[in-house]
Amino acid sequence: MAATASSLLAAASVSTSRAAISPRRPRAAPASVPSSSRSSCPPLRARALRSRVVASAAPAMQPPAVSRVSTVVDVDLGDRSYPIYIGPGLLDEPELLQRHVIGKRVLVVTNTTVAPLYLEKVTWALTYQNPNVSVESVVLPDGEKYKDMDTLMKVFDKAIESRLDRRCTFVALGGGVIGDMCGYAAASFLRGVNFIQIPTTLMAQVDSSVGGKTGINHPLGKNLIGAFYQPQCVLIDTETLNTLPDRELASGVAEVVKYGLIRDAPFFEWQEKNMAAILAREPSALTYAIKRSCENKAEVVAQDEREGGLRATLNLGHTFGHAIETGLGYGEWLHGEAVAAGTVMAADMSYRLGWIDESIQKRTFDILEQAKLPVAPPKGVTIEMFRNIMAVDKKVADGLLRLILLKGPLGGCVFTGEYDRKALDETLRAFCDN
Amino acid sequence: MAATASSLLAAASVSTSRAAISPRRPRAAPASVPSSSRSSCPPLRARALRSRVVASAAPAMQPPAVSRVSTVVDVDLGDRSYPIYIGPGLLDEPELLQRHVIGKRVLVVTNTTVAPLYLEKVTWALTYQNPNVSVESVVLPDGEKYKDMDTLMKVFDKAIESRLDRRCTFVALGGGVIGDMCGYAAASFLRGVNFIQIPTTLMAQVDSSVGGKTGINHPLGKNLIGAFYQPQCVLIDTETLNTLPDRELASGVAEVVKYGLIRDAPFFEWQEKNMAAILAREPSALTYAIKRSCENKAEVVAQDEREGGLRATLNLGHTFGHAIETGLGYGEWLHGEAVAAGTVMAADMSYRLGWIDESIQKRTFDILEQAKLPVAPPKGVTIEMFRNIMAVDKKVADGLLRLILLKGPLGGCVFTGEYDRKALDETLRAFCDN
Repeated sequence: MAATASSLLAAASVSTSRAAISPRRPRAAPASVPSSSRSSCPPLRARALRSRVVASAAPAMQPPAVSRVSTVVDVDLGDRSYPIYIGPGLLDEPELLQRHVIGKRVLVVTNTTVAPLYLEKVTWALTYQNPNVSVESVVLPDGEKYKDMDTLMKVFDKAIESRLDRRCTFVALGGGVIGDMCGYAAASFLRGVNFIQIPTTLMAQVDSSVGGKTGINHPLGKNLIGAFYQPQCVLIDTETLNTLPDRELASGVAEVVKYGLIRDAPFFEWQEKNMAAILAREPSALTYAIKRSCENKAEVVAQDEREGGLRATLNLGHTFGHAIETGLGYGEWLHGEAVAAGTVMAADMSYRLGWIDESIQKRTFDILEQAKLPVAPPKGVTIEMFRNIMAVDKKVADGLLRLILLKGPLGGCVFTGEYDRKALDETLRAFCDN
Repeated sequence: MAATASSLLAAASVSTSRAAISPRRPRAAPASVPSSSRSSCPPLRARALRSRVVASAAPAMQPPAVSRVSTVVDVDLGDRSYPIYIGPGLLDEPELLQRHVIGKRVLVVTNTTVAPLYLEKVTWALTYQNPNVSVESVVLPDGEKYKDMDTLMKVFDKAIESRLDRRCTFVALGGGVIGDMCGYAAASFLRGVNFIQIPTTLMAQVDSSVGGKTGINHPLGKNLIGAFYQPQCVLIDTETLNTLPDRELASGVAEVVKYGLIRDAPFFEWQEKNMAAILAREPSALTYAIKRSCENKAEVVAQDEREGGLRATLNLGHTFGHAIETGLGYGEWLHGEAVAAGTVMAADMSYRLGWIDESIQKRTFDILEQAKLPVAPPKGVTIEMFRNIMAVDKKVADGLLRLILLKGPLGGCVFTGEYDRKALDETLRAFCDN
């Protein structure tokens, strides 16, 4: 198993190496690009950041001669199928992005953190040798706490003030919050317009940008208002991870670990061996982790787009995790941090039920700890809070709380409401304040 | 043609007559109905209204022995297909409603006008001999001006506070505004729950409840935020029209006229002969008008659910009409009133283009005038307002305003952006203030 994973990793390395020797980012702007669509040097903040990042976030001024797409993962959903492109420097390839734009008007939805880093580059990629396309943008405040109706309305306001019509394309440029909000806005604006995901966090690249779940939070719970709505494509430029803070990177790792636990033991074993490389942002390790995560998610979503059952298994640790996030107030912990603690709780409960052996529980704990993720809820989140918040979880059906729990050998799980309530009580008591 | 229409009308009369002789509304409440789900006498306001209505709006206490469903129109949308039931007294048949409820929890969304008339009856129909179902309700303020995000949030608040889960059913009880808002709430709550339409206005019965268009208004335009989302069924109890004000009835007639103009000349000719009967609420005339309207709409929607082209023809007069509604501020004119004036304008423009002969223009004007509907925009709506508002119409694509215009013999129309702009200018000048 590990050998297979290593050879796949080697293959990923080859294409990344090829990318590294292709001509990159010449500084001269081609005369045909209108000056309003990009500037000749990167904005101040992006430039200041460049000193600490491996790859520059400055706009590329000419596309590379050879495509650097190292991987395409197809999400097979009939007439709603779409590709996920994964590779370093994909934002330097205008053609890749432009082939999925529908209409002449584009609205880029991003936030105050990502806009200074990549908005100019994305605008360039959308308009390079493409003078008929005009690009608007709306820059939202950054953070889960802004994933609400008021902020969503700013997207509608911008779209309507800009007189966008049905033949337009929304582009989500940012992490999971931006992707979810932009996707829901695209689903709802004029009852649905096209959209493209450009996820810039590991969390969004391995999970939230794939599969069409969009939505916003309600004060009483996460993602309670939304839509299933698929993008035209997902474009993952792995170089955007070079500007991602360590804590955000680790947050995404929580979802990578999840895929191994619920359905892909070889991937989990590969992670156990390569976690240090992932955290060190070793390009080939990151690319492989993203590719394998997207493949797992695409397989699940293709079988169960609207979460009739199988897809729910992607929420391992999320019911506990959502309770932590809601209990703390959105934005205190990152989503993946809450999921990590929730995953440890789910493993603990699975072990108490006798559904997994102790080694799986231990390996779950160890790999998340190695990723520097929380392995228990924070102080202040009580059993009572857990119970109240879990009662409004979307996976409650006819009053019964169904959970994703590990079962059998590594890589196996179940989505069920049939479990001994005592095990849940014991887990809550073991992990929470009274 | 007229003969065919008359025989259809005769057929509708037969089934209505059959209904009239079946046992109606015995007053004794069966012991098995929990008292919380209905009261033994109608609420004060409904009772006061009864004196002026033909059929009582009071809760029926026992279902009739024989089903009174006179017509079922099927909307054929593959796995999203659903029936439209049309007939007098359908709310007295709990089984009909209950067979389409999914889950044990129901949220009825209604408004302050309709709740006193029908909420109790609907609650009774949902819970009669069905003790496992619990019914919540949310009563919104009445009117197009409340078809906004703030009011929509009240539906989400109620659903979440009531801890409704994915296996629940939303019921829209009211006119088009309630149907559109409840439908969009159902589309968005937990990314989609089941819903049922119980339209109580002619407008909603012949148009807005059928076809899955849901949404809310934005200050800059109507229905700019929404979803295509199909109900489990539409239940049209024609007796609810007995409590409808004359002006609201006429508003619905504007859409009935539309079906004749765009695709059904025999239906238009039938209307010319039977308009007085419709306005006098003659049951068989109303039932036939609703049935034929639903059939027309169902045929169009089945061919073009997401409005790629054909479905847009249902918007005859609506682009002009929306401009009137938006220009006036929502709620000044009823939707059908604005559509009527818009239809006259569309016919005028079609005639100026030489696409229809004068008799069609005249018959359009005459039938709408006979229905006591406006045949021109009100004072104060200027050419400038028309232009600005039409520029953000959903039917604009890549900057080009497409219109539904009449063309050829009676019953023919086109949806096109290819027309002489001069004709539009002339129509605006002929109908509007400068």
